[in-house]
Amino acid sequence: MKKRAVDINCDLGESFGVYKLGQDEEILSLISSANVASGFHAGDPHVMRKTVALAKNKGVRVGAHPGLPDLIGFGRRALQISPSELKDIFTYQIGALKAFVEAAGMRLQHVIQHGILTKMAEEDQAIGRAVLESIREVDPDLLYLTLEGSYLPQMAKNMGFRTVRVAFADRAYDRKKRLVSRKITGSVIHDTRLVEKRVEQLVMTGTITTIDGETLPLEFESIMLHGDSPGALEIAQTVSNTLKRLGVQVKPMGELV
Amino acid sequence: MKKRAVDINCDLGESFGVYKLGQDEEILSLISSANVASGFHAGDPHVMRKTVALAKNKGVRVGAHPGLPDLIGFGRRALQISPSELKDIFTYQIGALKAFVEAAGMRLQHVIQHGILTKMAEEDQAIGRAVLESIREVDPDLLYLTLEGSYLPQMAKNMGFRTVRVAFADRAYDRKKRLVSRKITGSVIHDTRLVEKRVEQLVMTGTITTIDGETLPLEFESIMLHGDSPGALEIAQTVSNTLKRLGVQVKPMGELV
Amino acid sequence: MKKRAVDINCDLGESFGVYKLGQDEEILSLISSANVASGFHAGDPHVMRKTVALAKNKGVRVGAHPGLPDLIGFGRRALQISPSELKDIFTYQIGALKAFVEAAGMRLQHVIQHGILTKMAEEDQAIGRAVLESIREVDPDLLYLTLEGSYLPQMAKNMGFRTVRVAFADRAYDRKKRLVSRKITGSVIHDTRLVEKRVEQLVMTGTITTIDGETLPLEFESIMLHGDSPGALEIAQTVSNTLKRLGVQVKPMGELV
Amino acid sequence: MKKRAVDINCDLGESFGVYKLGQDEEILSLISSANVASGFHAGDPHVMRKTVALAKNKGVRVGAHPGLPDLIGFGRRALQISPSELKDIFTYQIGALKAFVEAAGMRLQHVIQHGILTKMAEEDQAIGRAVLESIREVDPDLLYLTLEGSYLPQMAKNMGFRTVRVAFADRAYDRKKRLVSRKITGSVIHDTRLVEKRVEQLVMTGTITTIDGETLPLEFESIMLHGDSPGALEIAQTVSNTLKRLGVQVKPMGELV
Repeated sequence: MKKRAVDINCDLGESFGVYKLGQDEEILSLISSANVASGFHAGDPHVMRKTVALAKNKGVRVGAHPGLPDLIGFGRRALQISPSELKDIFTYQIGALKAFVEAAGMRLQHVIQHGILTKMAEEDQAIGRAVLESIREVDPDLLYLTLEGSYLPQMAKNMGFRTVRVAFADRAYDRKKRLVSRKITGSVIHDTRLVEKRVEQLVMTGTITTIDGETLPLEFESIMLHGDSPGALEIAQTVSNTLKRLGVQVKPMGELV
Repeated sequence: MKKRAVDINCDLGESFGVYKLGQDEEILSLISSANVASGFHAGDPHVMRKTVALAKNKGVRVGAHPGLPDLIGFGRRALQISPSELKDIFTYQIGALKAFVEAAGMRLQHVIQHGILTKMAEEDQAIGRAVLESIREVDPDLLYLTLEGSYLPQMAKNMGFRTVRVAFADRAYDRKKRLVSRKITGSVIHDTRLVEKRVEQLVMTGTITTIDGETLPLEFESIMLHGDSPGALEIAQTVSNTLKRLGVQVKPMGELV
Repeated sequence: MKKRAVDINCDLGESFGVYKLGQDEEILSLISSANVASGFHAGDPHVMRKTVALAKNKGVRVGAHPGLPDLIGFGRRALQISPSELKDIFTYQIGALKAFVEAAGMRLQHVIQHGILTKMAEEDQAIGRAVLESIREVDPDLLYLTLEGSYLPQMAKNMGFRTVRVAFADRAYDRKKRLVSRKITGSVIHDTRLVEKRVEQLVMTGTITTIDGETLPLEFESIMLHGDSPGALEIAQTVSNTLKRLGVQVKPMGELV
Repeated sequence: MKKRAVDINCDLGESFGVYKLGQDEEILSLISSANVASGFHAGDPHVMRKTVALAKNKGVRVGAHPGLPDLIGFGRRALQISPSELKDIFTYQIGALKAFVEAAGMRLQHVIQHGILTKMAEEDQAIGRAVLESIREVDPDLLYLTLEGSYLPQMAKNMGFRTVRVAFADRAYDRKKRLVSRKITGSVIHDTRLVEKRVEQLVMTGTITTIDGETLPLEFESIMLHGDSPGALEIAQTVSNTLKRLGVQVKPMGELV
């Protein structure tokens, strides 16, 4: 059954000081929800304010994208952090971004952990619970973005969250509907015709075809783009154009769940 | 005319990681408002949560104490920061602390800038305005602590703030009711009998005696303590005991303005 | 009298973590001396090692480019740092870069302070002396790069330094042979034909023409390029090509003083 | 066979900015080698210079004590760092400390990794090799401190290092001569009479008695103290006094291997 509307989300605001990363302005024209880096793995207070203003200007809703305190490693290196430490650094970052969002007259829409933290949370329920407890203590109405293949979506629901299920148009899936590791050939799809096909399959049939050729149902409300990879903008345009061609509206996730 | 009630405020939460600074638990038993370091010049997310919990436990109200991004210099070294940059780092820090305060079921009470920023703001109205704009954009109901001797109290009022006027019991004043520089002998009062006398003069007559021997009126709602100097705890106890002896209640500033 | 050989130096290694800045590989093919960011205002240990390796591979000599501890501000914001504090952060950074240079089988050639520190040093002799004392204590044979218009070249000589005098081909000079502030129109020269002319004038006649049209002698051993500005590579190529056309050799400063 | 001389080493220079940690001056009177924090997990350029000066003044030799880039976690939280990244941060830190030591007219004596890095190196030979490669590339004459129970002492020897074997007087050992985890009761010995006995056993018989009551030979040249734990100074005095009573000289490790 064809979807009437989906959200498109993307990591943004990953610049820092004089360092520019990503094509935020161009991407913002194509998406409905932005995951804004919150100052620990990327982003700084100046970038955060600017990114929020740009998002507002484009009618894009803002979520927090907190990460590990590791700017050199861009939050991609696992750190042996305790659940309570993780909860603290999340509340700090989400609170900081929330202040910029509210100062701009908007409301923080959602939260999604950055980088290696997704893997850390999936592998350690105490970490996953800390992530969710932090989000809930800042604002229980915040949406939480989830991927299939772990306990996290269920735990989030059990804790009272409205969750937003995420699909990827440019990443290969395995049979458990998990993303195939970037180390595997074919895990990242660069061919825009293939991306177009996958978007069409997703929104028209609600399925994905795994790397092994199996077709499986995949429920989702939001398509996630990658902001900082080479070709990111072209992929984003492909996803956007495909949805337009198919008559699928792009709406912030907050209006879809 | 004798005061019925005053607030006592003090900088707290200045520890960082394994590094301990100040005697927060003891000081919290003696004060009504805590200025909690917000992670840039001192404090970290873990210290912030812990300090907020301790304050709540003692019935002490919490304010944000944002500073310059200079942990090595403890926020005491002037940095050539633009007003908009200053506004950004304040909104970030105040937002972060606010999240911890609200997660603890409290409401952020006030804000006071840390360290060299008071001097920077007093000397540059664009910096002072940026401080106030940041506080107002996070929450216009936040109280702002002021000292006499600059344009800041008036600007704050003009911008719609409820201000809280601060008096020092252990610092010498000049004729303009400004604090005498710490470099001058006699600027910091260590003698607890003298502190006792000054507290008594402040609350019984609403006056101070300057370093030149002149007696001047000084309006205030809160007495500020120093948390991290040697003898800080003894001074705090002296102020607390003197107020008790005189029958002056100690109440959070939020109940006094 | 025409110069037989000059050095070309440029700031390099200013990337940080995932953040790329400048076109180091291309620039390295055109210069003889690299000023490598040393980890405080830009650069990180990984970038430093990589930059040193690239420089070695191109036969480019390496100098340290220490800055203020302000990554967000890229070392361009004045910080109220004491001379002894400055000396400490310089010795730390120079020592760190020296280790990478020596590990690569080279010898650290020179030092030049980064960003706002040049202005801070020119305005405060205690800061300038601290810079020089730090360099001397790490290795008294290190060359020190100087600009005209301040006490620094003379102080450096008095302290026993071999100094290298720097000229700019793409910056306007005033009558005191100081660089015209970037805020002034015409202070930065983007026109490559003009840059070509200025390089030719510098190496053929040893003079510059000031922004007021006056022609003044300028002694120099090295032409400084800017690595990270737009058009930087084109300017670099222009300087390099002009020297080639004129038959002026490009040699590391260490071979010229 | 009784030892004629041993080294006593201790972690020092762990203060940061306004934050004081440890009793460096008192400890320096009791030891012969200091492991000086190098700015990533603790210490800063100012503390480093001051600590080196204090050590020199007491005739104590200085080693580098590099750690993970995690000031909040004091270098005690494992970070998923690649061998080449580890090598880079070590060369950076060792180079920085070396500059202070040489500026003070001394020679860097040794290196020992800090905190969780010992465990990380023992569990991953690529990490251990990176540690050793970094030390060797900075200066192959640097001594490397080793504990029994892992491949590291042998790898260090194979790579040409002079190693210094370390013994602990206040930590329990297991049958493999590894330190018993701090989480186990009895792993840290606070009773100074027990410490005295253990020191005597170490230097008079060259043995330790494990937590299971077994007596095993332990070869060592240096006794390691802990600088920052409660009671650290008392333990240090006990070790020092015991050696004095037994007529065992305390000499820098550089004179013993």
